[in-house]
Amino acid sequence: MTFMNPDRAAVIRQLVNPRSVAVIGASADFSKVNGRPLKHLIEKGYGGEILPVNPKYREIAGLACYPDIASLPHAADLAIIALPAALVCDCVLQLGRKGTRAAVIFSSGFGEMGPDGKALERELADTAKAARVILLGPNCLGFINAFENVYATFSQYADGETGAGPVAFVTQSGAFGTAIAALARRRGLGLGYFVNTGNQADLDFAELMMAVVEDPRVKVAAGYLEGISDGEALVKLAQNCRALGKPLILTKVGRMESGARAAASHTGALAVSDAVFDAVARQYGILRARNEEQMLDMMEVFCQPRRAGGNGLGIATQSGGAGVMMADRAEEVGLSVPHLGTQTQAKLASVMPAFGAAGNPVDVTGQFVARPELLSESVVAMLDDPAIDVAIVWLQLMTGHVDALLKIFAEIRDSTEKPFLVCWVAAPETAVKGLGALGIPVFSAGERAVEAAAALARYGQSKRKADVGPEKSRLSPPMPTAPSGVQPTVEASALLAAAGIPMANVALAGDEDAAVALWRGNGGAVALKVESPDILHKSDMGGLILGVDSEAAIREGYRALVSRAKENMPKARLSGILVQEMSQGHVELVVGVSRDPVFGMIVMVGLGGVLVEVLKDVTFRKAPFDRHEAALMLSELRMGAILDGVRGKPAVDRDEIAELLAKLSQWADAMAPRLLELDLNPVLVGKSGPRVVDCVMILNDAPPEASSR
Amino acid sequence: MTFMNPDRAAVIRQLVNPRSVAVIGASADFSKVNGRPLKHLIEKGYGGEILPVNPKYREIAGLACYPDIASLPHAADLAIIALPAALVCDCVLQLGRKGTRAAVIFSSGFGEMGPDGKALERELADTAKAARVILLGPNCLGFINAFENVYATFSQYADGETGAGPVAFVTQSGAFGTAIAALARRRGLGLGYFVNTGNQADLDFAELMMAVVEDPRVKVAAGYLEGISDGEALVKLAQNCRALGKPLILTKVGRMESGARAAASHTGALAVSDAVFDAVARQYGILRARNEEQMLDMMEVFCQPRRAGGNGLGIATQSGGAGVMMADRAEEVGLSVPHLGTQTQAKLASVMPAFGAAGNPVDVTGQFVARPELLSESVVAMLDDPAIDVAIVWLQLMTGHVDALLKIFAEIRDSTEKPFLVCWVAAPETAVKGLGALGIPVFSAGERAVEAAAALARYGQSKRKADVGPEKSRLSPPMPTAPSGVQPTVEASALLAAAGIPMANVALAGDEDAAVALWRGNGGAVALKVESPDILHKSDMGGLILGVDSEAAIREGYRALVSRAKENMPKARLSGILVQEMSQGHVELVVGVSRDPVFGMIVMVGLGGVLVEVLKDVTFRKAPFDRHEAALMLSELRMGAILDGVRGKPAVDRDEIAELLAKLSQWADAMAPRLLELDLNPVLVGKSGPRVVDCVMILNDAPPEASSR
Repeated sequence: MTFMNPDRAAVIRQLVNPRSVAVIGASADFSKVNGRPLKHLIEKGYGGEILPVNPKYREIAGLACYPDIASLPHAADLAIIALPAALVCDCVLQLGRKGTRAAVIFSSGFGEMGPDGKALERELADTAKAARVILLGPNCLGFINAFENVYATFSQYADGETGAGPVAFVTQSGAFGTAIAALARRRGLGLGYFVNTGNQADLDFAELMMAVVEDPRVKVAAGYLEGISDGEALVKLAQNCRALGKPLILTKVGRMESGARAAASHTGALAVSDAVFDAVARQYGILRARNEEQMLDMMEVFCQPRRAGGNGLGIATQSGGAGVMMADRAEEVGLSVPHLGTQTQAKLASVMPAFGAAGNPVDVTGQFVARPELLSESVVAMLDDPAIDVAIVWLQLMTGHVDALLKIFAEIRDSTEKPFLVCWVAAPETAVKGLGALGIPVFSAGERAVEAAAALARYGQSKRKADVGPEKSRLSPPMPTAPSGVQPTVEASALLAAAGIPMANVALAGDEDAAVALWRGNGGAVALKVESPDILHKSDMGGLILGVDSEAAIREGYRALVSRAKENMPKARLSGILVQEMSQGHVELVVGVSRDPVFGMIVMVGLGGVLVEVLKDVTFRKAPFDRHEAALMLSELRMGAILDGVRGKPAVDRDEIAELLAKLSQWADAMAPRLLELDLNPVLVGKSGPRVVDCVMILNDAPPEASSR
Repeated sequence: MTFMNPDRAAVIRQLVNPRSVAVIGASADFSKVNGRPLKHLIEKGYGGEILPVNPKYREIAGLACYPDIASLPHAADLAIIALPAALVCDCVLQLGRKGTRAAVIFSSGFGEMGPDGKALERELADTAKAARVILLGPNCLGFINAFENVYATFSQYADGETGAGPVAFVTQSGAFGTAIAALARRRGLGLGYFVNTGNQADLDFAELMMAVVEDPRVKVAAGYLEGISDGEALVKLAQNCRALGKPLILTKVGRMESGARAAASHTGALAVSDAVFDAVARQYGILRARNEEQMLDMMEVFCQPRRAGGNGLGIATQSGGAGVMMADRAEEVGLSVPHLGTQTQAKLASVMPAFGAAGNPVDVTGQFVARPELLSESVVAMLDDPAIDVAIVWLQLMTGHVDALLKIFAEIRDSTEKPFLVCWVAAPETAVKGLGALGIPVFSAGERAVEAAAALARYGQSKRKADVGPEKSRLSPPMPTAPSGVQPTVEASALLAAAGIPMANVALAGDEDAAVALWRGNGGAVALKVESPDILHKSDMGGLILGVDSEAAIREGYRALVSRAKENMPKARLSGILVQEMSQGHVELVVGVSRDPVFGMIVMVGLGGVLVEVLKDVTFRKAPFDRHEAALMLSELRMGAILDGVRGKPAVDRDEIAELLAKLSQWADAMAPRLLELDLNPVLVGKSGPRVVDCVMILNDAPPEASSR
């Protein structure tokens, strides 16, 4: 990852804000892909130097046109390449020779076009590296820096008015991204940057976003993703956005991706990549928008500067039904719609004596047309209530009263420091524009306003979490030297126990007498289990017997397990029989670690038994994380109430489970070079805390550095 | 319920399509509530007679104005009452005397204004009944019949162009309803009728909707509900819409209503009214829209005449990412995105040789701008595939190509009989208008198009179900004569067994000897349970002992249960100890019946144990229903996979469970006069089918008819 290289960062900054732009293969036909950037650069008033290159012209639109790159008077900060694919590599070489360090490649015919294209793209990447040119693309629409009027693009989006604004929008899709940008424009949301990454032969999404989000004029980062290859870079981006105090809104398609990855462990099978992405988003405060509409709604709410201090939503509405609908949605998306304090209620009652209900939602009816103070005073009273962190005002049409209402909303804005949103259904265009001018976010539907308010609240929570800061991993356990593959239970268990994971005591018996001796040493009932590197799921083949507590039973059990193994899995190598202390616990958890190809070591926790199999009630985090984050994991389980005691069972201690998860995450992070998959299943939790009853650990080959230690 | 009264139906028809309209309290100021209907009736060209009544005027806008109702030249078909609340009752009396049979009451100051208003509203209803006048309102915006230009309204919606169209829209909310109507107009969806029900002192939602949906010019019924009082009428409406072949789209607010109803049974506590409404909607083919945007999307898709024959969705897209997003959403909302047949694939490959992926979604890229046949041929090929029932074409912007694209879409429409939808993101206005003119539904976002396509598919399924027809209840069991309250287990069990419900054998022992004799008679292990009308949930107080199988254990168990009951619930009346055969079964269900105040007898089924307590994995149907409907209930359970065998357990027979549910529903329907609540919990299901292990039955007082038998 070249992400943190300061030189590279400087060149990216130069790419998005060049003092001069060369257009290689420029056309005088401004309707063409290779003419459009020139048109926009000229017409929209780019202040730098524009350098067309094409042997066919002496000049284009009054600009001197150069026959080739070598003839340019000096190296351009940025080159736009609009040539056939076959000519691109040579062009990059020439640019490098001339001293140009950054290029945007519109040309298609690379990775998107089968194996030959992929090979050409690899050649391009290698050429660029050797020539010391960084690349945006190929097969991309290019980018717009609307602050400096840099139009290095042929996107349709550039055809309209592209007023600069506080949003940086980076998209992996050209077509969808252009549509989203156009919708943002229709809503009056200014895009300071519009960047299409294309095939990402060199610069990828995270690097580009990082470059533009650092611009102090940018207040909101929004991205559209179709796939991620560098998870670390995305996490780093999220952390930087958090440090900058700028929300990072991402839409990623592929929610249902059914993870065709082969995985030996349950954890691997459950950790399909979208669920992992979703967990990482929660963990690092990324605001995930499920589709383009939600992304635009989030842009809208974050373009105003106020943030929510908590999740209390106040609703003022002109329609009782709309109020109920919004309150319902609020509950679904994690907001509360709190009762108002007695002081607030008294204030509301004095403002609206005729209306009995001074609750939340507040029904202000349509009377405020005659008495504007009704609306402003009631909304301000509501926002003044300490339980309220953000408010939504719902109204509809009011075609004849736009000016009066805009005045009211300006008053409300000036009378409070808390954020409030307007949902104006079937709003006149003047109303939407007017609210935009006042810096008040406006939505077209109640549920969408609620979702945007929830994003504000979520952002506040994540910001507070960041202020606390994650615990650093303090573990540096010795790297195991065992060969790769499934690890023997006793050894695996010892590794985990050393890391502070509460493992049930277990030992391996090579014969009946040894088993009897271990039972005697244990002093109480034991479990007998088949041990074999070839049998991962012991219970599936009858490979365990529980609660054995006499010499005769131990001997009988030993023989039974050996014969079952021979019968059911004749080719399995048998290591012996495990003798394990019995564990108590009325809650069954599944805990595991898997290695995600994008995000690395991922820890999973879920409720065991049938719940994990059918409901897949599991959740994930990227390792390492602390106990606070682990507690959040537990709160995400749909059946999490089981932990607090149901059907007469006592509650278990969530903190002890969180402790286990955090320790495991730190160990897994340290073990990343060797740990492939880990299942702790089941983990029984009872009065005395969690106890890991079975574990399957799979290591891979030691990396060269590790083995040379 | 007066719903089916033919005279009343005729008067409602007259109300919505009157030959003459009297405006009582008419104003010459057309900006006022009592002037606006006159304005609209005149300006929009109402063809009937307009009769203003107000002693202040001799004429208004050239129309003769009458001093009072008595002076009118004849009885108007419809009167609009825009008077202060205090004058309304007298006005209705006079109208009745004159012979006017229908009135719309704008006036507020009734039920919405506290106890006095409620009393006044009751008086109004009684007055109207006595005067033989039917009422729309009070406290309503009135209605529009856009076909005949009847504007009996002061709604803002009437201010714009209200071209008649195939949608009948009835709304309980004035403000929200007006906004929805305005949004429908913006989308070019014509509302043939717009009706606001107001306080529903007389005519309610279902009756009004039934009247307008019968108009043959109406093709789609859409309603907005805030509450339902007459469930039977709503069911009847749904059935009539189904018989007429017209989709009924309803938005009802209050999804999260947390059911503050007191209920002794689990079933009662779980059957909160919104979940019941939702189930009834599924049962009777009502298309529930979760909010106004979804309602408008459904209107859009049903305004075109084509219906889907199945749930196979084909997607053609200009953006791979948008395709993935739509395919994901399709999976979530019950559509399939099937693989295309080899023939279709070959056709697609011949149309688009350069693009390898001829799968579904089909990525048509932007190339169709140059080669329009690319789009038309590929979409038609996809729709010709037998696995595809409906298609969505996704595109964006294309500002310069609207005419060409409209031509393509017209071609596609003419080349197939299957429905297809266009999702055009950031569409130029001319595109949306043009598609509307072609009768092709158009959506602004991909996920919303998918949800609309899912509604088309759901409607097709419900239509097929209706064609099969529900089984009629064939049971007429004797009505129990027992006193109200909790029924003794043995008697309740006998009632259910007689109805064909598989009850575990159970008998009551009054002393230890009797218990021993019952155990001997059973011939195997039994369960002992405390029996008391005061102990509904036996296991909560340790009131049951399972698997007892010796005389000593029976005696000991008997004594233990009696002493536990005395200790834990000293005031409970003890009837004795139940002796019950042990039942086998590895799946635990909860089944129940409760009486919904709106929809009557409701049957519930869910997965038992912790799943019902924490996950609330239950579903409902209105009784009676057949086995097919019962099977659908089972398919709605989130954890339904448990029925098909998990963790090595065998599958259970879904048909036998469905049979139990259907029989129970028919019995519950027949028992409606007396059955208040019923819990069958648990119902154990194993190899030998379901077996009810415990039941709590609560009867209410026999109604007068029943007791006089």
